[in-house]
Amino acid sequence: MIDVCLLGTGGMMPLPYRFLTSLLVRYNGTSILVDCGEGTQVALRKKGWSPNPIGMMLFTHYHADHISGLPGMLLTMGNADRTEPLTMVGPKGLEKVAGALRVIAPGLPFEIRYQELTEKEETISLPGEEDFTIRAFRVRHSIPCYCYSMELKRAGLFDLERAMALDVPKPFWGRLQRGETLEYEGRVLTPDMVLGPPRKGLKLCYATDTRPCPSIVEAARDADLFICEGMYGDESMIGKARENRHMTFCEAGRLAAEAGAKELWLTHYSPSLGKPDDYMDGIRAIYPGAVAARDGRTTTLKFD
Amino acid sequence: MIDVCLLGTGGMMPLPYRFLTSLLVRYNGTSILVDCGEGTQVALRKKGWSPNPIGMMLFTHYHADHISGLPGMLLTMGNADRTEPLTMVGPKGLEKVAGALRVIAPGLPFEIRYQELTEKEETISLPGEEDFTIRAFRVRHSIPCYCYSMELKRAGLFDLERAMALDVPKPFWGRLQRGETLEYEGRVLTPDMVLGPPRKGLKLCYATDTRPCPSIVEAARDADLFICEGMYGDESMIGKARENRHMTFCEAGRLAAEAGAKELWLTHYSPSLGKPDDYMDGIRAIYPGAVAARDGRTTTLKFD
Repeated sequence: MIDVCLLGTGGMMPLPYRFLTSLLVRYNGTSILVDCGEGTQVALRKKGWSPNPIGMMLFTHYHADHISGLPGMLLTMGNADRTEPLTMVGPKGLEKVAGALRVIAPGLPFEIRYQELTEKEETISLPGEEDFTIRAFRVRHSIPCYCYSMELKRAGLFDLERAMALDVPKPFWGRLQRGETLEYEGRVLTPDMVLGPPRKGLKLCYATDTRPCPSIVEAARDADLFICEGMYGDESMIGKARENRHMTFCEAGRLAAEAGAKELWLTHYSPSLGKPDDYMDGIRAIYPGAVAARDGRTTTLKFD
Repeated sequence: MIDVCLLGTGGMMPLPYRFLTSLLVRYNGTSILVDCGEGTQVALRKKGWSPNPIGMMLFTHYHADHISGLPGMLLTMGNADRTEPLTMVGPKGLEKVAGALRVIAPGLPFEIRYQELTEKEETISLPGEEDFTIRAFRVRHSIPCYCYSMELKRAGLFDLERAMALDVPKPFWGRLQRGETLEYEGRVLTPDMVLGPPRKGLKLCYATDTRPCPSIVEAARDADLFICEGMYGDESMIGKARENRHMTFCEAGRLAAEAGAKELWLTHYSPSLGKPDDYMDGIRAIYPGAVAARDGRTTTLKFD
């Protein structure tokens, strides 16, 4: 089960009725924040969620609308007496950028651990959560930018026949089913000895700010939820989308259709795009269920 | 005539229903912004005012809640094609702090001119506005902090008898009355030769974040409007106010009463202070007209 909340849906600058684009993902007591623009801490508070379970912050890139809220968020965490370390992940330069912004947030009561992305694709693990994987993949923006997919694996069903056939002693069945590997009388017992084939897990893919590119389709393949930027609703803005390295709604729709994503939410609207809902006909001809998300849109991804 | 808008009234952290404390003052086509925390650009936009007439930004100090919105505000100004230079004034270290924050707002299309305060008291002039004076004065906070007063002078009435007695030629009366100094037939003609004594002007005093101190009383003396921090409404929080170098409502009221200020607005409330209006009895016993200001409170100061 993964909770997903799109805290804001705005690009470029925060507006009175629209927070800057950022995503909060909750899994098993840990929260992961993707991007933190000016006002993200307010959006989080408006949602009624605390910043302190945030164990990890992922940054797509260092344009101000994706990181300008960082010093305020860190101070708010510190004021709430946080002592747990915070892991920050982002493209190369993260420590330099975050360090500069911390000129107004020095002396925090918790440690910050930086993890800088340099490869085309990298896997990030959430401590203590082996079944949950975060994958960062490089995309096409005007500066180095990464997008993220998150996957939760689901083990196979308990396979009684297999456990019996392989003569696995009954007292160990439960621990093996929960993923432990054991040794007994010189024999190594592994979870696959009592489990059927892995079942379909959960997948979330988050892509902003970028032009369409194959790495997004690959990352969003069969995703339960694909959240994608749609900077421009009007397709006649395609020139501007290309110039500024963003997407139109229809471009996002094509990615979702090609990837076979089960659900698509649009986000990161241009400040000039007052009513995204007015521009949904074109994209719905490509991807029928596309949603022009609004601030605070929330869902829970659950196993079938 | 001076327009005054208290864009936000929050201290420490922005809240869903309360922007961080900042002030916008408009005089004769120029705007002056005092402090720029996270969300100040949103508060300004909500008010319907543009950031581009802001010719000057004054900073009280560099705690995040007073400057964290700077990079976003600068980028928004730049995106609106501003080319006019911007003057920033604040305690020593301004260029270093603003420079660090500009890691995410590089390459602006306008020049920034820094003016750092080092003296106990300094006068700042608004270019082209000789009658309008800004005074910065050092106060008592946990880090170097300045508060600001602004004064608009008002010349005396035209004094026909004096102009005739001093034999000022009639064709020059208008220009002298408008403040020009002229030379005619070897004689220097000055405005005071045709004007009565200066009349009462306008005065605004803005004080946050600080403990009460004599420099505030002096700066707020006979002010038409005194805007003062009131971090704590409950007087039992006096210990915390002393410790954190802030004020209680009653302390602000005493300053206003001692200064003989005509109007008092409270601001910079603690995030724990949900309803400032619930704490007005004590301060109103000291200063009857005290107002617990809310975000966006606006007035126009006018000559009598």
